[in-house]
Amino acid sequence: MIKVVIIGSGNVAVHLVEAFFNAENIDLVQVYARNLLSIKYLQTKVAITDDLSQLKEAEVYILAISDNAIEKVSSKLKNIKSLVVHTSGATSIEKLQNLGKKGVFYMLQTFSKNTEVDFSTIPFCIEAEGEKDLKTLEFLAKSIGKKCYHINSEQRQQLHVSAVFVNNFTNHLYQMANDICKRNDIPFEILHPLILETATKVMETSPFEAQTGPARRNDTKTIQNHLKLLNKKQQKLYKLFTKLISRNYT
Amino acid sequence: MIKVVIIGSGNVAVHLVEAFFNAENIDLVQVYARNLLSIKYLQTKVAITDDLSQLKEAEVYILAISDNAIEKVSSKLKNIKSLVVHTSGATSIEKLQNLGKKGVFYMLQTFSKNTEVDFSTIPFCIEAEGEKDLKTLEFLAKSIGKKCYHINSEQRQQLHVSAVFVNNFTNHLYQMANDICKRNDIPFEILHPLILETATKVMETSPFEAQTGPARRNDTKTIQNHLKLLNKKQQKLYKLFTKLISRNYT
Repeated sequence: MIKVVIIGSGNVAVHLVEAFFNAENIDLVQVYARNLLSIKYLQTKVAITDDLSQLKEAEVYILAISDNAIEKVSSKLKNIKSLVVHTSGATSIEKLQNLGKKGVFYMLQTFSKNTEVDFSTIPFCIEAEGEKDLKTLEFLAKSIGKKCYHINSEQRQQLHVSAVFVNNFTNHLYQMANDICKRNDIPFEILHPLILETATKVMETSPFEAQTGPARRNDTKTIQNHLKLLNKKQQKLYKLFTKLISRNYT
Repeated sequence: MIKVVIIGSGNVAVHLVEAFFNAENIDLVQVYARNLLSIKYLQTKVAITDDLSQLKEAEVYILAISDNAIEKVSSKLKNIKSLVVHTSGATSIEKLQNLGKKGVFYMLQTFSKNTEVDFSTIPFCIEAEGEKDLKTLEFLAKSIGKKCYHINSEQRQQLHVSAVFVNNFTNHLYQMANDICKRNDIPFEILHPLILETATKVMETSPFEAQTGPARRNDTKTIQNHLKLLNKKQQKLYKLFTKLISRNYT
């Protein structure tokens, strides 16, 4: 059994609390939130507090808070000797201001408050300064999930920007396609199977091999026809992608 | 029972032949290929030919051939009175040069020769000049699949360019993420669950609502940090997406 305290009440905190309740090997001893009301629903199951000076003894303190708050909140944990970790993809381990041991417990997935999370599919990216702490975080990860990777702060930053490409930017492409469909009275759902196929294909084939389409074939006739159908914003993106893709295959 | 002839031996043709063999209501009477050798494996199951003047009687002739060949091949079907359809997303119904009835039988999905196709998930986009022919194509589609949409030539062109956004361009974003991972010794598989989550999310939520990330939040600090991690090509794309996304939410 590992004793854990969770600090935070956002999406990540909420889902972690739930997962730790259901984990056999984890003793969630306390949850902290700045606003006690936000975690009042937990009080029959676990100790709650809004006072950082009243934190209970634990082996790991997990900061599931916004990136901007990590420095400030961790600086208030000076008395804590055991491991303090944050859960941010974009923040270096060095931003932690506690004087004791430091680590990172980053889950690479988008969390929504009202959507259930399947932790067995989530990659846990862990970092710590010592081998023992790394083992502790690995134990934590394996208690609620399956996949655990040792990722240092430099790699985690790169992973975070990669996630922006495959999540945020991809979603914007979906939005552009949705706009085109709407304007032409086409149900967007017609594209759902293709969206899913594109996503699952790169789990079996490398994206380089999976690439198809007029840009890869350098099919200038189709490219010209497509450009005529698009508005200025869409054209700009279409042209840039076409240039980038066709360069990769010549 | 509808009598069908398939003209072509590429990916789409191969999968259609297979599906029609398994369909109860369809009588596949013949398959044509320019190169007879490429369809020789079918000869125990169906009549094959490499001579367009020797086509058998059928109610529907399906041209599953490359876009560029549609005009030429259909012009050789002048004697055929019954319905001739092509399967191209990018080609107008008017490109068909046969003198009889015309239509389109477009399946919006990427086909690979060696991957099995689940026709039950594929959207069939059909077009014809008369109500009766439309019914025939709908019957054909429902015999091997489930989802059938009436899409005219103008809409189909728009759908085709939308598919380029959600398939070709999305795949290129995966490739960029893959490049970043490779350069930093990060297994690309860490991103698989996020890729899948992003794809499935827009089947429940509109892409506009599903959008997250620094560009939507206008989080300029994270954006600046990300740009420092990228090469010139990646920066160009990152900047353009960031501009387009942030404009949508201000």
